Amino acid sequence: MLLQLNNLVFFLTMPSAIVAKLWPALMVLFLVVCCAGVSNGGVTSHYVRKPEASVCMPKAAFPPPQGFNAPEQVHITQGDHVGRSMIISWVTPMEKYPNTVTYWAEGKGKDKHKKHSSIKFYRYFNYTSGYIHHATIKRLEYNTRYFYELGNGKATRQFFFTTPPKVGPDVPYTFGIIGDMGQTYDSNQTFEHYMSNTKAQAVLYVGDLSYADDHPYHDNVRWDTWARFVEKSNAYQPWFWTVGNHELDLAPEIGENKPFKPYTHRYHVPYRASKSTSPLWYSIKRASAYIICLSSYSAYGKYTAQYNWLKQEFPKVNRAETPWLIVLLHSPMYNSNNYHYMEGESMRVMFESWFVENKVDLVLSGHVHAYERSERISNVKYNITDRLCTPVKNPSAPIYITIGDGGNMEGLADRFTEPQPSYSAFREASFGHAILEIKNRTHAYYAWNRNQDNEAVMADSLWLYNRYWYPQEEHSSA
Amino acid sequence: MLLQLNNLVFFLTMPSAIVAKLWPALMVLFLVVCCAGVSNGGVTSHYVRKPEASVCMPKAAFPPPQGFNAPEQVHITQGDHVGRSMIISWVTPMEKYPNTVTYWAEGKGKDKHKKHSSIKFYRYFNYTSGYIHHATIKRLEYNTRYFYELGNGKATRQFFFTTPPKVGPDVPYTFGIIGDMGQTYDSNQTFEHYMSNTKAQAVLYVGDLSYADDHPYHDNVRWDTWARFVEKSNAYQPWFWTVGNHELDLAPEIGENKPFKPYTHRYHVPYRASKSTSPLWYSIKRASAYIICLSSYSAYGKYTAQYNWLKQEFPKVNRAETPWLIVLLHSPMYNSNNYHYMEGESMRVMFESWFVENKVDLVLSGHVHAYERSERISNVKYNITDRLCTPVKNPSAPIYITIGDGGNMEGLADRFTEPQPSYSAFREASFGHAILEIKNRTHAYYAWNRNQDNEAVMADSLWLYNRYWYPQEEHSSA
Repeated sequence: MLLQLNNLVFFLTMPSAIVAKLWPALMVLFLVVCCAGVSNGGVTSHYVRKPEASVCMPKAAFPPPQGFNAPEQVHITQGDHVGRSMIISWVTPMEKYPNTVTYWAEGKGKDKHKKHSSIKFYRYFNYTSGYIHHATIKRLEYNTRYFYELGNGKATRQFFFTTPPKVGPDVPYTFGIIGDMGQTYDSNQTFEHYMSNTKAQAVLYVGDLSYADDHPYHDNVRWDTWARFVEKSNAYQPWFWTVGNHELDLAPEIGENKPFKPYTHRYHVPYRASKSTSPLWYSIKRASAYIICLSSYSAYGKYTAQYNWLKQEFPKVNRAETPWLIVLLHSPMYNSNNYHYMEGESMRVMFESWFVENKVDLVLSGHVHAYERSERISNVKYNITDRLCTPVKNPSAPIYITIGDGGNMEGLADRFTEPQPSYSAFREASFGHAILEIKNRTHAYYAWNRNQDNEAVMADSLWLYNRYWYPQEEHSSA
Repeated sequence: MLLQLNNLVFFLTMPSAIVAKLWPALMVLFLVVCCAGVSNGGVTSHYVRKPEASVCMPKAAFPPPQGFNAPEQVHITQGDHVGRSMIISWVTPMEKYPNTVTYWAEGKGKDKHKKHSSIKFYRYFNYTSGYIHHATIKRLEYNTRYFYELGNGKATRQFFFTTPPKVGPDVPYTFGIIGDMGQTYDSNQTFEHYMSNTKAQAVLYVGDLSYADDHPYHDNVRWDTWARFVEKSNAYQPWFWTVGNHELDLAPEIGENKPFKPYTHRYHVPYRASKSTSPLWYSIKRASAYIICLSSYSAYGKYTAQYNWLKQEFPKVNRAETPWLIVLLHSPMYNSNNYHYMEGESMRVMFESWFVENKVDLVLSGHVHAYERSERISNVKYNITDRLCTPVKNPSAPIYITIGDGGNMEGLADRFTEPQPSYSAFREASFGHAILEIKNRTHAYYAWNRNQDNEAVMADSLWLYNRYWYPQEEHSSA
């Protein structure tokens, strides 16, 4: 009942405009609260999607835009630490030029700015990329719609985005959460479902983008088609990138030994803004959230660059400025699927204690092609000789969410370990995506939506309580 | 008594020439066998070295050789997978040339060969290296002394080495084992003790070479002085390198972000010969040993290059050809010292099961500035929910040896965990080095020698029994 009272107090103190918007979610919440106490263990959802293979859409499904040398594969991500810059990236297939982005604030079309891009290309076995442009536009106003144009003449293309509000503790913001997407008909369903949500303002992407490496010789054309595929979202709102194993693109058999070669050429992130020395780990602030992206596939042992960086990063997080501390990493630290079981252990033993000490709210992962949400648990007591190696409830611990269910060609991971371990709160082998609606410093509404018969159906949701400002126990609708 | 009978049988079947040579060791063995059953737990040696700081020898203690542009810092390591090549490395301080090594087999001085070096140099903050030469001389005869000359005119310097016997299952060979050496007066003692051993034919070096990074701005002159320091051994016998944290040389505060920059410029290893894609992990065969060197400070998660390489490496080991399987890695997987306690866990959870499945004989590590030898134990049952997270005796498991006691400036790690855990067989906070004498496919004699009042005193020793050919339990003299 304490929980219900807490929710009631929160409800009564919320501005009425917000309450009006939240009615449907709040109804669900009350249903949850009514039913929550019934089950003591986790839930394995019995929803069964038809177990068909996930089939790649043909390359022809992703045609380049019309016009000679038209800019394509347009994608944007935050370009600094606080949200006043944007990295605009695109590819010109035939010629390097034009290499400028023209941009202006909404209503200020007479005050246009230009920014030159840096241009790179790469070779991968028998593939040569187009000219990959990256331009960081800076000193943008907060909370403002900007238009931008690429290309020239008939091949000119125009896009727009909205900058985030200024960083602050009670600034609401809505993120989409997607992982392991690929470019199948299932990926398309996930993507369309995400696109149909008009609230989401940016995507937290938990790794494994194109799955080019699942094609012969890592057919890098699939990197091109993927960027065309998601352009209709990614050119208009920033996606925040985390690397997965499918970004490694290691293929010694064809002489390709440089890890992350296609990915790092194509996707830039503002890593220097957070004093990182590698684009594979970095942080950004956005609205009321502090987002830390880590690499499961780089060195993370003590003394390594990623370890040193992360150690210095946590003390920089000011929860009075960004209450919501969210970590993204590809290989889940808690996973009760037989697929990739315990693969995240090696990184868990390095970093889990830091997550708990720093009261991380959420750890988002992909990798496993199913959905799972953990309890707030930790497993940080083990000292080799003490046998204390079991996850236990811990209110300072993050919730771990595995959401590698974007729909890629490798299909669903439909074999969970049995019985469901106590650390697992909800799990289901369906494709889908999630939405995280941060309301203020204490509350955020999280919902996972499965792809069900061409509809997005909310199958798991809960009100998240901030670990720093309101470390109460949550109850889910699962 | 079974053990004693086994030893007796072995003793009686040994060639008499070997028996004669082994008398002192065998006497120790019998004493060991007589006393072994007395103690059920591990031993923490009460030998206490005077707890003074380890002081770096001054740079002036390592003068360059005389003569204009004289080749210096000469060091050699195996240049192929089987021991018929040698990488000859040296530095010329003033000019690039001469860039050749002249070499000939003993007694064949009229049949001289020349090999050109590749030349590189690097900058590190305010330091510029000399010209670093690497030349791989190939198609050498087995078991043959070679002379080689570097430089010219009055600055010519001559050295020699002996190639190993052809790889085979009963080929005896003697390795020195040194780690974390640095360049203090204690390092010098360790080095002189090692040098006084006339049997050792090559060094297994478990990482942390110069400790240049402990000096202001990672004073890279200390890389030069270290290579001069060990030249009198390393120019005459190969040292096999493993990287430690002191090879990382990361210093973002002075703009140095490329891991292993000084090390990889100065020390070449034959990594391509074992199909590795990085000099930080590789293998070689030598006599009856298969040596695998890993990097504790590179990525080792599933799907990474090191992981993929190691996974493919184990099936290549043919114990009928190389019975002794030895792994070198810097950060110990089993360590009961408070210093660096559990730092090796992250790599252990990735690789320990492979070590056990493949019956690795020995895992040699450094990092902790003390000495420790484990029991044959494993901790590979843990599955998150089963609580099976305690090391248990396992005859298929390696013995783990921590020997980061070369004598560097950071001093001794003299605080062990109490009580001594059951996985720890012997531990002592002294500086020292070890000698591993492989006798045949079944037996090898291992001894650790502490630095004691300017003498090397054997403080821990045992007959090692090969895990593939003779997987019996060993008993130590500790």
